[in-house]
Amino acid sequence: MKGLTKYFPILEWGRQYNRATLTSDLVAACIVTIMLIPQSLAYALLAGLPAEAGLHASLLPLVAYGLFGTSRTLAVGPVAVVSLMTAAAIGSLGVLETTDKLLAAACLALMSGLMLIALGVLRLGFLANFLSHPVIAGFITASGIIIALSQMKHLLGINASGDNLVHLLQGLLAHLDQINFPTLVIGISATAFLFWVRKGLQPLLLKFGMAKRNAELASKTGPVFAVVVTTLTAYLLDLGSLGVALVGDVPSQLPGFSLPNISTDFWLALAGPAALISIIGFVESVSVAQTLAAKRRQRIDPNQELIALGAANVSAGSTQGFPVTGGFSRSVVNFDAGAETPAAGIYTAVGIAIATLLLTPLLAYLPKATLAATIIVAVLSLVDLSILKKTWRYSQADFIAVSATILVTLVLGVEFGVSAGVLLSILIFLLKTSRPHMAIVGQVEGTEHYRNIDRHQVITHPNILSVRVDESLYFANAHYLEDQIDNLAAERPPLQHVILMCTAVNTIDMSALESLEALNSRLSDRGIKLHLSEIKGPVMDKLKHTEFMSHLTGNIYLTQHRAVSDLVEQDYCI
Amino acid sequence: MKGLTKYFPILEWGRQYNRATLTSDLVAACIVTIMLIPQSLAYALLAGLPAEAGLHASLLPLVAYGLFGTSRTLAVGPVAVVSLMTAAAIGSLGVLETTDKLLAAACLALMSGLMLIALGVLRLGFLANFLSHPVIAGFITASGIIIALSQMKHLLGINASGDNLVHLLQGLLAHLDQINFPTLVIGISATAFLFWVRKGLQPLLLKFGMAKRNAELASKTGPVFAVVVTTLTAYLLDLGSLGVALVGDVPSQLPGFSLPNISTDFWLALAGPAALISIIGFVESVSVAQTLAAKRRQRIDPNQELIALGAANVSAGSTQGFPVTGGFSRSVVNFDAGAETPAAGIYTAVGIAIATLLLTPLLAYLPKATLAATIIVAVLSLVDLSILKKTWRYSQADFIAVSATILVTLVLGVEFGVSAGVLLSILIFLLKTSRPHMAIVGQVEGTEHYRNIDRHQVITHPNILSVRVDESLYFANAHYLEDQIDNLAAERPPLQHVILMCTAVNTIDMSALESLEALNSRLSDRGIKLHLSEIKGPVMDKLKHTEFMSHLTGNIYLTQHRAVSDLVEQDYCI
Repeated sequence: MKGLTKYFPILEWGRQYNRATLTSDLVAACIVTIMLIPQSLAYALLAGLPAEAGLHASLLPLVAYGLFGTSRTLAVGPVAVVSLMTAAAIGSLGVLETTDKLLAAACLALMSGLMLIALGVLRLGFLANFLSHPVIAGFITASGIIIALSQMKHLLGINASGDNLVHLLQGLLAHLDQINFPTLVIGISATAFLFWVRKGLQPLLLKFGMAKRNAELASKTGPVFAVVVTTLTAYLLDLGSLGVALVGDVPSQLPGFSLPNISTDFWLALAGPAALISIIGFVESVSVAQTLAAKRRQRIDPNQELIALGAANVSAGSTQGFPVTGGFSRSVVNFDAGAETPAAGIYTAVGIAIATLLLTPLLAYLPKATLAATIIVAVLSLVDLSILKKTWRYSQADFIAVSATILVTLVLGVEFGVSAGVLLSILIFLLKTSRPHMAIVGQVEGTEHYRNIDRHQVITHPNILSVRVDESLYFANAHYLEDQIDNLAAERPPLQHVILMCTAVNTIDMSALESLEALNSRLSDRGIKLHLSEIKGPVMDKLKHTEFMSHLTGNIYLTQHRAVSDLVEQDYCI
Repeated sequence: MKGLTKYFPILEWGRQYNRATLTSDLVAACIVTIMLIPQSLAYALLAGLPAEAGLHASLLPLVAYGLFGTSRTLAVGPVAVVSLMTAAAIGSLGVLETTDKLLAAACLALMSGLMLIALGVLRLGFLANFLSHPVIAGFITASGIIIALSQMKHLLGINASGDNLVHLLQGLLAHLDQINFPTLVIGISATAFLFWVRKGLQPLLLKFGMAKRNAELASKTGPVFAVVVTTLTAYLLDLGSLGVALVGDVPSQLPGFSLPNISTDFWLALAGPAALISIIGFVESVSVAQTLAAKRRQRIDPNQELIALGAANVSAGSTQGFPVTGGFSRSVVNFDAGAETPAAGIYTAVGIAIATLLLTPLLAYLPKATLAATIIVAVLSLVDLSILKKTWRYSQADFIAVSATILVTLVLGVEFGVSAGVLLSILIFLLKTSRPHMAIVGQVEGTEHYRNIDRHQVITHPNILSVRVDESLYFANAHYLEDQIDNLAAERPPLQHVILMCTAVNTIDMSALESLEALNSRLSDRGIKLHLSEIKGPVMDKLKHTEFMSHLTGNIYLTQHRAVSDLVEQDYCI
């Protein structure tokens, strides 16, 4: 039973479901539905797909997450960064027909869903930890810039394309003469309005005496308001005939089940992008879910989240949708609006279904510029270059990784940015551990503590050299260590003892063991004994059975202090 | 001046050169020359090249190393593993003509030489440390097996080919009916004789009263003896007409300078193999050089060694040779024979030049089976499966890396084995550090030491939890740490303080800092304060300027003992 609830969290929260929870969930679902309609249309546009794909991706996937998800408040659906990655993946196939694009998008979602489920079942969620915070932050910032730029063409009413900074700017500049002014007016007004809603509406409502929470939620309905007003304007002024791009006919029917049927070559070509989309979608979603869960002292299970997001994507892929994940702003609204269980997501899906059946005829006159404006306003909040400043001040390694991620994403596109960031952070970590910090230590007077002689007033003995190595000993630093300590010893002629203080040594691998053997005999050639102190339990367990223990010229001491006292005493005895 | 001697070590040892050194070097050079002639022919055969290529590779490269090398006794030339890798690289091009093979081999040597020089100039020699000892041991063992198998066809006088275990065995079995019996007799006798020389000659000579060192050196002349006897036999009995494969005409002239002229496609195709050959050759050579230098209390400079080996390979590439490096057995002989300076290598080159001019006509009757026998006997000493047992007993991670290296080398060939081993060892290291060992610690009674509660009798306090994390905190383990400590805290309701003991924390990167922030606020939500103790100097330097310091609910203590005493005292005061 416990095992079953693990895989179907609905069995847990479902049992405590009552009227109060129902009411809270329904209110939240209504607000999220209103927010999600323009977003789902806009992100379909961003992914290079017709508007209905956005609605499809906001139906069954929400139900699937509701059944399997462990977060009580995560709102799943199309999100900006994943939609951009979808556009890039489809773009790399070189298909032009809309039906082919839809198939490719569904195929991406399906594959990504299966990959997520596989990771979840194999409990490999921890692999996502290899994406460091700065790399993710850099990637999202750079993606935000690319997304905003990619939407400029809709705001200007021109034809331009490109999936990186250079191409986008070139495309825009080359077509500046084709600007469509009615489109520009709609676009600029919508953008200005949405910015004002974001910054100015809430204070205004508060001033008029509205409760803070309601004011916050009301300010989230801005996009719907913009959609309604611009659609009406376009209809009344017949803006379509003035060259304003409109969304056009959206079929007012629910999607059927069907697996995308495309060639093996395309499946193969999409496997890499699907993997990237999976991992980025998962990392984004899980961090939102974790943040929100912590606020209510709830917990989420990352491996079950993989399964839930996987199920959501498999449903998106089999109902003509495209890749989805948990979105930040949407989940925050869901949380603030009082959603208490994943049922809120299921009710949202019902809301979207009703909208699909009833409201789509009205969307024909919706200007694309309005959708572009909602995207631009939404993603500019993702752009946060302060991560550069933060890492610059705190950590060189992180700064290099984050700048590389931003630069590569901007210049080469989203598909390379994350990989570059991850590889670089791993490389830097390896390089750092391959040249570890070492300190010569001495006794802090009157204590049993041994500290760096460069940082503290300490007592040392001319015939004893105590070295603390601040890293595990493994193949990449074994030789370095051997050479450094041998050099330190060579510089100190009266030396008789070297004590290696192992407080920070968490493992000693085979290569390092061989290097210690070599160091032991090199020091022995110089008439110096090698001692070890403060070896950790797990490390000692392994060393115990090795030949090294019998070759070691010196002793192994539980504490550094005992080592030094013992060796000093021996000296007096001689 | 110091800088110049750094790049031209000859300026240092050349100044102290005198008659005694000259005599020692000349004696060593004579013995090495006698050993090198059959070896250079045999390794050319192994590389799939005509015999003269081996002689060419033993001329100028030795002079180049003599000018730039920092090892006093390293003997450079063709070696088994690098020759096998050369054969594999040429094989992958699919060229059949001997002249094309020679060009490809020269091109490999040239590229590998340039790569080595580049690594040396950029002082990137430390990169070789990422090849762990067990991976190298596994690779050499597996290569030894493949080499021995690849020579069986020469011993049996059949035509078979293949570059991995499966293909080699298939090839041999498929052609067993074509065995040439005169070849088999020559091959088996030569092999048996060489094994006997290796094991039995030295004891025999000692029994006859020969000095140990002379007996050792005499036992190294076995291959030359085998060459002379089998060549004479082949000449006298006209074995060629009986189907015994002979070396045939070897041009008795010195090679001219010429850069290999092959298509760009081939250069590109050979770049990967050239890089692998460089790194394997360097690692092998440097470990031999280091071992020998340590015996005489000399030192070698790995970055200058890169330049010297690079120069040797550039010369090999521009004089119709193939990739060379420092060989183990040859260098030991050079060392034992008393070589004192790299001049011995230069004299050896002169010896080989004389042999090329005078002795090559005699080589026409040399049976290939004899060369195959010398190779087999030489490489079987490389095969040492004990590394499997050693790593099995000492370290799981190393065992996995070494078994993968052996398996992949045997099954997929030399080009994949090392890469698989290196990638796997890095991956395992990353995975290990991503799930670090953690210990709850308590005070060892009567001391200021804090140890693992599972391993020692310690004192703990119910409202204080002290956790020691045995790893640097970085992106791959940041989340894990956050979750683990939060879980530990959640299990202990009366808890008021968590002390993170950082003796083994060598860095805290940006991701880990953010996780600490998150942990701090998660614990704070539970009414628990987070304290840090024993933070290292370099880590503290970075933390000092962060916002985390002002958010931290608890304190930072220099020592774990002070942290606990302080918190216990606070408790009594309340």
